[in-house]
Amino acid sequence: MDLKSKLREVPDFPKEGINFIDITTVLQDAEALKQCIDQMTQEVKSFGDFDMIVGPESRGFIFGTPIAYTLGKGFAPIRKKGKLPYKTIGVEYELEYGTDTLEMHIDAIKKGDKVVIVDDLLATGGTTQSNIKLVEQLGGEVVGIVYFIELSFLNGREKLKGYEVKSIVQY
Amino acid sequence: MDLKSKLREVPDFPKEGINFIDITTVLQDAEALKQCIDQMTQEVKSFGDFDMIVGPESRGFIFGTPIAYTLGKGFAPIRKKGKLPYKTIGVEYELEYGTDTLEMHIDAIKKGDKVVIVDDLLATGGTTQSNIKLVEQLGGEVVGIVYFIELSFLNGREKLKGYEVKSIVQY
Repeated sequence: MDLKSKLREVPDFPKEGINFIDITTVLQDAEALKQCIDQMTQEVKSFGDFDMIVGPESRGFIFGTPIAYTLGKGFAPIRKKGKLPYKTIGVEYELEYGTDTLEMHIDAIKKGDKVVIVDDLLATGGTTQSNIKLVEQLGGEVVGIVYFIELSFLNGREKLKGYEVKSIVQY
Repeated sequence: MDLKSKLREVPDFPKEGINFIDITTVLQDAEALKQCIDQMTQEVKSFGDFDMIVGPESRGFIFGTPIAYTLGKGFAPIRKKGKLPYKTIGVEYELEYGTDTLEMHIDAIKKGDKVVIVDDLLATGGTTQSNIKLVEQLGGEVVGIVYFIELSFLNGREKLKGYEVKSIVQY
């Protein structure tokens, strides 16, 4: 199945000029969801042995947990400020206007853990940079990053130099 | 494994007097995550044949997608206002102060679809009531609801009378 043909493009969302790639048409299609998770799981396995899957709120949760479950690994969520109940570390990242903070629990991963980051979309790479910082501050090693979709024209890979990056569908 | 013993209680989060049940200690433990998803999947299967898993943002995503993937079904997300890019229907629900709106895409499920709602926690049942309204407005039939955790002392089941409700861990 051509997964790209199953994605829906929504023009002018969330604002004029942005062509939003809507993943829900894949999620709600049982066969497409299965193929998507299967392919992402294969890419995760291509990095070799690892300990944990890490995924950012909230679409990273959609892809991260089934992959962790299938491969018999744990899953650690990255969340927006104030959502995680236990002790956290935080990393600020820039938005179009102002900044926001992403957080991880201090015991989400163990020192030396090999980590694969999973998310729905590689755009500018800014969110993933913050995710990497969090994992590395906790002593983890990012052995690879897997996205469902990559917006190649935004050159997100430039910001992720030195890391293994894979994606299933490219625009 | 006793999954309850793997959950972490965080006192006074998000505010004084609330004993928050932290699921991340289960998620990050590969064996606990596997057992949790396996048990929830068994409960979903106990409702008989169905078409779609529906899960609300954002912790419903964590449990909903692996179950949908494992059972070869589609997954439809319920999100907070303004997050879903395509045409939506919305249901208002009451917060402690004011109201908020949950939304679903108008094509997330088909008329007559048998739907299982999956979420992390049954507290007062308010969020699930909104989820049921959304599914039923789209012409779906809620054949069952599965939670990881149920706070029995809040009597959420009272609000869900007439629906099949299952949970894995009870407080």
